[in-house]
Amino acid sequence: MAGRHSRSLTGSKVRQMHRHANLRPNMDRLWSTLARSAEIGTTARGGLRRLALTAEDGEVRRVFQRWCEEAGCQLTVDGIGNMFAVRPGQEADGKVVLVGSHLDTQIKGGRFDGILGVLAGLEVIRTLNDHGIETRLPVAVVNWTNEEGARFEPPMIGSAIFTGDKSLDFALSRTDKDGITLGAALDAISFRGTGGLRPDQCDSLFELHIEQGPRLDAAKIQLGVVTGAFAVRGFVVEVIGETGHVGPTPMPDRHNALVGAAHVTLAIEEIGWELHPTGGKSTTMRLVAEPNLLGILPDRVEMTCDMRHPDNAVVSQALERFIARLPELEAKSRCKIRLHEGWSYGGMAFDRDRVGLVRGAAEALGYTHMDMLTEAGHDAMHVANHLPTAMIFTPCEGGLSHNELENVTLADIEPGVNVLLQAVLARAA
Amino acid sequence: MAGRHSRSLTGSKVRQMHRHANLRPNMDRLWSTLARSAEIGTTARGGLRRLALTAEDGEVRRVFQRWCEEAGCQLTVDGIGNMFAVRPGQEADGKVVLVGSHLDTQIKGGRFDGILGVLAGLEVIRTLNDHGIETRLPVAVVNWTNEEGARFEPPMIGSAIFTGDKSLDFALSRTDKDGITLGAALDAISFRGTGGLRPDQCDSLFELHIEQGPRLDAAKIQLGVVTGAFAVRGFVVEVIGETGHVGPTPMPDRHNALVGAAHVTLAIEEIGWELHPTGGKSTTMRLVAEPNLLGILPDRVEMTCDMRHPDNAVVSQALERFIARLPELEAKSRCKIRLHEGWSYGGMAFDRDRVGLVRGAAEALGYTHMDMLTEAGHDAMHVANHLPTAMIFTPCEGGLSHNELENVTLADIEPGVNVLLQAVLARAA
Repeated sequence: MAGRHSRSLTGSKVRQMHRHANLRPNMDRLWSTLARSAEIGTTARGGLRRLALTAEDGEVRRVFQRWCEEAGCQLTVDGIGNMFAVRPGQEADGKVVLVGSHLDTQIKGGRFDGILGVLAGLEVIRTLNDHGIETRLPVAVVNWTNEEGARFEPPMIGSAIFTGDKSLDFALSRTDKDGITLGAALDAISFRGTGGLRPDQCDSLFELHIEQGPRLDAAKIQLGVVTGAFAVRGFVVEVIGETGHVGPTPMPDRHNALVGAAHVTLAIEEIGWELHPTGGKSTTMRLVAEPNLLGILPDRVEMTCDMRHPDNAVVSQALERFIARLPELEAKSRCKIRLHEGWSYGGMAFDRDRVGLVRGAAEALGYTHMDMLTEAGHDAMHVANHLPTAMIFTPCEGGLSHNELENVTLADIEPGVNVLLQAVLARAA
Repeated sequence: MAGRHSRSLTGSKVRQMHRHANLRPNMDRLWSTLARSAEIGTTARGGLRRLALTAEDGEVRRVFQRWCEEAGCQLTVDGIGNMFAVRPGQEADGKVVLVGSHLDTQIKGGRFDGILGVLAGLEVIRTLNDHGIETRLPVAVVNWTNEEGARFEPPMIGSAIFTGDKSLDFALSRTDKDGITLGAALDAISFRGTGGLRPDQCDSLFELHIEQGPRLDAAKIQLGVVTGAFAVRGFVVEVIGETGHVGPTPMPDRHNALVGAAHVTLAIEEIGWELHPTGGKSTTMRLVAEPNLLGILPDRVEMTCDMRHPDNAVVSQALERFIARLPELEAKSRCKIRLHEGWSYGGMAFDRDRVGLVRGAAEALGYTHMDMLTEAGHDAMHVANHLPTAMIFTPCEGGLSHNELENVTLADIEPGVNVLLQAVLARAA
């Protein structure tokens, strides 16, 4: 069945997959590791606050390290703190099959975002151990540093160092809101390493993740075969007004930057609705006003916005439409509006072969599945430009994520974990 | 001439005023004290950052104290740090004629807002000294603590303690953004006193202030006779949305609190334009979003807004119109919008007799003048409910204030200072 989607190159892997086609992970064990993780950085509402490289992140990293070492893996940590727990393969110089995600969370994050992908990777290794399976290629579980970007910007910085997309000096000098550098934070939890893996030492990356959107849950489909990523354009909008006294300054003499920001927000929202019928969206997510004090007209607002759409060209056109509206928004608000260079990611396809292994495993196991694009950013998107990569999505309750109430059941994730195990075996066995 | 506006009660004061009608302040000396003040807390753009009870405020207070003591005044400081520099009068139990304003500034404030009123009061006393004039009533220069409210909210807290409108315990326990209490800040600069004056010990308050609006400057009128204060309603608007991932959450499933805030801001702006033809305005001045991070739909925005109009009833109706629009704004943004109790001040008239003295002095001195209301909040508005009070406005360049570029010339302020001197003499001489 998988063969229908596989190319001849992967035929041998499909046969190997079948050799272990009845292998199943221990879902209760995985669930208990997820529960243990959920004890570290727990919030009052039952979510997690485990910002990258904080004491809580240090604690979960040490628990994860112990589990990996108990599972016979050798841990190697690189200069940005990415953790690679390697289970050796039969081939001395065999390239590593990577599986993993991230253990850090948002400020008010959930218990599964990222965490599921790392601990499912650990479960893959534990399952291989349970059955004494020696694989041809090494298998490693990876925990990427600072995926969320909730403490240090940009997000997904660990995988960007792995791939060489960013320099280590740049990454280590990022500061959090208290001025602490990422390098100092790494040292504080003793996770600045000198080892790690390079892309040319790796065979593949498989990242299992909750969907973080409602489609699978709404359609009661057991898993998503992620074929690529939405195109994302992020940008910073600066609105420049003029301070003045809120009392005596007459309406026509005002240049209130918050009024400019309101016009920008509604324009961004309007473009979001234009993109919606073809699956896109557009968001104002962050806004800081200055001086932001009683009695003073604010003279500066900085906003962070993004636009996302499956089609690179459509998102580029949407951004152009926004830029074309700036003079109108400036006139309405009597403020200057400047668009600052932002970032762009996604808009790419995952590796056709590795995606085929995922889809094939889903079919072999008889799970309902659908092809989909990831709308969120993931480390896999950085890695995909450097080695063959695929992602698997599991449903999550109501699509809620980046929220303390994010939730999945064991039944929601079992199909994804089974497919992950089979896909890893298809490469490594 | 002044008699035209004065009531019989003040006839004797008008005669006394005439006895010193040729007395003139030393404007060069006043200008040099303003220049010395402008050296304490100077910003790069030539404004002042001299937040209440900071080291800078402590420094200017000590300079002011030295000047007052050199001028023969006795300084008495109350429990909130209000400074009263008293020049004794001939009558042993004579009530004190107060003159003053505040020496603290906004974060990016100007060199004259408040400061002019205090240092012009000092110049009144120095002028009396120059000419060996003994007054019947004592004259005191007052520096009110934390007028701006830029460090501790609410603003104008010093005068509210003087009048008893707020309790000292409440005031001392206010905290700044770093959690430092107002009481601790007072102690840090050694300006928590046990003396001060009570309203029942005072005869009048005269507060000279820059207009902080453009009307006098635009009409080239030399001073404003402030007859009362705009009615002000301040309130906090809370917008409650729901967090979610900016990527996968489809437009119809979103509850982005910043979108709600944008609709609120534009509704407030619209009401401002409705109030404008009759002299009113409406403002969103402060906005804080949560969690305000990349990748997350914000679930909460807190905004501070106010509405101002000469007529109490009109501003109340405007607030009712805003409240009536909330269901529509909620529907448009798919957020909950809650209005929290705020504050209300102004909407009162200053003392007709003391205002008459100001107007009479302006006419006697041949200055062009106009009656006007203050649109900004001033300590005089608290004091006015407890003792006869008047304010004098001087023009300021372009009406710009609460801005580092706030500016006046010596010629702009000379008429106001002369009128202040004559009005004080009319009561005290």
